[in-house]
Amino acid sequence: MPQLDLTATSLEITRTICDIPSVSGDETVLADLIDAAIRPLPHLEIFRDGDTIVARTQLGRPQRVVIAGHIDTVPINGNVPTREITIDEEPFLWGRGTVDMKAGVAVQLKLAAELTDPRIDITWMWYDHEEVDADLNGLTRLARTRPDLFAGDFAILGEPSNGQVEGGCNGNMRVIVRTDGVRAHSARAWIGENAIHKVAPVLVRLAEYRARDVPVDGLVYREGLNAVRIGGGVAGNVIPDLCEVEVNYRFAPSRTAEDAERHVRDVFAGFDVDVVDIAVGARPGLDGLIAQEFVSAVGGEARPKYGWTDVARFSAMGVPAVNYGPGDPHLAHHDRERVSHAQIDDVERGLRAWLSTP
Amino acid sequence: MPQLDLTATSLEITRTICDIPSVSGDETVLADLIDAAIRPLPHLEIFRDGDTIVARTQLGRPQRVVIAGHIDTVPINGNVPTREITIDEEPFLWGRGTVDMKAGVAVQLKLAAELTDPRIDITWMWYDHEEVDADLNGLTRLARTRPDLFAGDFAILGEPSNGQVEGGCNGNMRVIVRTDGVRAHSARAWIGENAIHKVAPVLVRLAEYRARDVPVDGLVYREGLNAVRIGGGVAGNVIPDLCEVEVNYRFAPSRTAEDAERHVRDVFAGFDVDVVDIAVGARPGLDGLIAQEFVSAVGGEARPKYGWTDVARFSAMGVPAVNYGPGDPHLAHHDRERVSHAQIDDVERGLRAWLSTP
Repeated sequence: MPQLDLTATSLEITRTICDIPSVSGDETVLADLIDAAIRPLPHLEIFRDGDTIVARTQLGRPQRVVIAGHIDTVPINGNVPTREITIDEEPFLWGRGTVDMKAGVAVQLKLAAELTDPRIDITWMWYDHEEVDADLNGLTRLARTRPDLFAGDFAILGEPSNGQVEGGCNGNMRVIVRTDGVRAHSARAWIGENAIHKVAPVLVRLAEYRARDVPVDGLVYREGLNAVRIGGGVAGNVIPDLCEVEVNYRFAPSRTAEDAERHVRDVFAGFDVDVVDIAVGARPGLDGLIAQEFVSAVGGEARPKYGWTDVARFSAMGVPAVNYGPGDPHLAHHDRERVSHAQIDDVERGLRAWLSTP
Repeated sequence: MPQLDLTATSLEITRTICDIPSVSGDETVLADLIDAAIRPLPHLEIFRDGDTIVARTQLGRPQRVVIAGHIDTVPINGNVPTREITIDEEPFLWGRGTVDMKAGVAVQLKLAAELTDPRIDITWMWYDHEEVDADLNGLTRLARTRPDLFAGDFAILGEPSNGQVEGGCNGNMRVIVRTDGVRAHSARAWIGENAIHKVAPVLVRLAEYRARDVPVDGLVYREGLNAVRIGGGVAGNVIPDLCEVEVNYRFAPSRTAEDAERHVRDVFAGFDVDVVDIAVGARPGLDGLIAQEFVSAVGGEARPKYGWTDVARFSAMGVPAVNYGPGDPHLAHHDRERVSHAQIDDVERGLRAWLSTP
């Protein structure tokens, strides 16, 4: 059993925890290791639920921040163990989880151990099952059993954001647009009705759709409406009686679920539309003083986050939240996932500067 | 082992041979039974290849007709054994193969036994594997090993045609129309290119396409161009990089394979088109005197056949061919396949009248 030495550098901790596979559903080895490293620390109060670990300071500070990171990864594809690579003379740690999001977790673990006297009380959360169904997500479980643990004035998710602050996130909705027809032998097509031909206007509307840019609290969220799947057909000699287009709508955090659904139904007016699932986004979370101090402490300028992340969960619970972590989000889930050494250091430095007693 | 009594009525023979399953690839039991019933007949010369049986008269008549029927069926779906049903007071034999095409085969078997002195020499062919890949078809095999057996002035396929003469058949072509794109996470769709959206003009052209009616030797063939399958998509959060539409073109027998391919490429100009397979049609086969005598003997008016059948094989070998058999072709392969008693009798009477010594 490896040991987790939190006096090592964030890079070394990243390497250690990436080399311990923790694909969703298989996080216990890593969770136990984190538990063993964190539990002895006298400045932290520990709570564990399954493979989710919560550690918090109780210093009586006037403000509290929740800083969270998931410890699971998408499946490994020949990219564990990690290795060191160099791109354009810049050193990177390569391998599954380096970007999404064990480098972020490593920085959090190191700071959890070292920041014994932060100027803001901190609730650290390391959780399981983020990369799979939301029902399985460790935070879903925790929100049900211990909602009090989410209390805070601000939250930071360590999701990869190239070491920049990415505020909030777009909402995410999937619908099925369906056309019906009548089956017939294709040698006598005029007896049937071709459901695939009927879907033509659906694709035309998608192809002509111009996604909106929506300003929300100073950030501009770019939306998107896209077919992600299409299927129809029975056999090579049969006029098809059904065609289905799965459409993914990414919508600005200023829209409610009802707004988003109404918009999609308007776009596909005249067609049968079933909503498969919907998750509203999160506003940037940058209005409060604490958020503004955070942005100025870590440097740079806040940007919008396009992908849906667990910030939306905090936002829905009334806690403004942002994404801030090392790693290029375009490389998340990629087989050539890798994180730059420099970004790991930057994020550690940024968080430390903001959290340390001035 | 049941016996095949060719002194029974055509309806009774139909029932017997339908109750012996002979799904493509599993025709031996039925072929053996036919062989045992036909081989003892002194007026017929027998040739067998696998489960294909050829029986011919050698009376030195100036003309010869080939009369053929396949003995296999598509898979059974709870519709064997047969049963008697009544629709609007009309009696039907219900079950797999009643239409496609054991009623036609039954009539042929009965006439093969009884017409010991026809006015035209007859080559009877009962063959296997018609409902599957053309490579497996018993006639494909026979054409390779014994092309001489196909010699004739005229050919009749007993495929279901509602007891009407259906001349020739349309050609049949399948193509794949393909669009390419660039994969990306659907939260950042603008980085990718959506292959499903790009297929919109393909479906618009199909939906707006007006199929042509093409007169050929006095019959009008109705063409058809239809999407029979569409597929594309990687996952619910990925911009798809590939979409494929399978298109089936049914084209008049006056067109060559090259004509047909050129037409389809014109319709989809600007898109990637792959021809999957192509089978040219057959002209009506009704120009010759022997064909005209046949049509007037069996009564009614000749119509065009829309579906591709083995008549095209005879036509390609220089033997004019028509379809003529009991059963509604719309019910072929249908789970409620059934043949009217009256049509079985009509077809038996028609063929007997034409073939008997005047």
